Amino acid sequence: MTIEAATGESRITALCALSQQVRELMDATALTDVPEDELEAITADVAALTARLRAVARETPQPFEFAPDGTLRHLGNAVTGAANPHALPLVVTSDGESVRAELSFRPLHEGPPGSVHGGISAMILDHVLGQAVVVAGFAGMTASLSVNYRKPVPYGVPLVATGAFTRKEGRKTWVEGRIALTDGTVLVEATGLFVTPAAWLGE
Amino acid sequence: MTIEAATGESRITALCALSQQVRELMDATALTDVPEDELEAITADVAALTARLRAVARETPQPFEFAPDGTLRHLGNAVTGAANPHALPLVVTSDGESVRAELSFRPLHEGPPGSVHGGISAMILDHVLGQAVVVAGFAGMTASLSVNYRKPVPYGVPLVATGAFTRKEGRKTWVEGRIALTDGTVLVEATGLFVTPAAWLGE
Repeated sequence: MTIEAATGESRITALCALSQQVRELMDATALTDVPEDELEAITADVAALTARLRAVARETPQPFEFAPDGTLRHLGNAVTGAANPHALPLVVTSDGESVRAELSFRPLHEGPPGSVHGGISAMILDHVLGQAVVVAGFAGMTASLSVNYRKPVPYGVPLVATGAFTRKEGRKTWVEGRIALTDGTVLVEATGLFVTPAAWLGE
Repeated sequence: MTIEAATGESRITALCALSQQVRELMDATALTDVPEDELEAITADVAALTARLRAVARETPQPFEFAPDGTLRHLGNAVTGAANPHALPLVVTSDGESVRAELSFRPLHEGPPGSVHGGISAMILDHVLGQAVVVAGFAGMTASLSVNYRKPVPYGVPLVATGAFTRKEGRKTWVEGRIALTDGTVLVEATGLFVTPAAWLGE
């Protein structure tokens, strides 16, 4: 059984390495200036690789599961999943009270010229706030998210996203978070309201 | 000159076709269950294609530009760009008063098991609301976005996102939007406040 678990993790590592390489292909695609005939040749090659990956396929991304170290992970998650090319992936850590993620956006995340799309900042903050609720010891569904844009968010620059619990009233939990430069300059702020379904409390 | 323009569009078409094929590779990566040795072989092949695309590269994604039909387009946009693999791409249309986009999410967009990540719904609504401001005839920067989650958003299902102007006070413009099932059932709602910088008005 120990050997089987190790083999599984080895394959997971290979899957995450493939996902990272696909992210680099995505980046290269968004920035390429190679001639038309080369674009067409590469498109055919990408199609062939796609078919090889589809030879054995799941219907849903990698599930929520316990990693060998006992932590819960979701490798298929669209924002944090190391096995999902759409994800940065965002790596959220916690000191037991608040959450923090060091991140850097890429040219692929552009909205306004030279800046990250505002919707992508909102996407990141939604996830960070949800993690802040979990770390605070509460369980709930996102009810609302409010995002305030202070300054344009640059790509290719180290940034820090943070989130923390602010207050609780009955089944409602409020959290707040932000994306900032490493010098502390706030670029985008957000607050979130999460509600614990009454059914979860047996009420 | 006409021939040059046509040649450029032919290359743009090839670039968009490559981006679409890369999206399919992303999807296949998130869902693949092929063995470890095949994952490693494909990773090496993806790396080789990445290097070929990087042989001639830009530093920023495809820019805002006028298409041959005179419309403004941003093929490199993270949400709408046909030449950006990160984008759905979202295709927003307008009747001159409000905006509308038919869309469908993919397993790659998963957050909670079987549902689209809440941050991705926020990302889409941020863009739709911004377009609603433009269609209403105003120019501005997003100041704030508020998203209310009503029901889980499924993937693999046709959805409709809409956005419309609600009111204006001085340099502030409010818009609202939603993502709904095709039968009209609202899944996520949002309001946005956009502010026209005083400098743009010569004030």
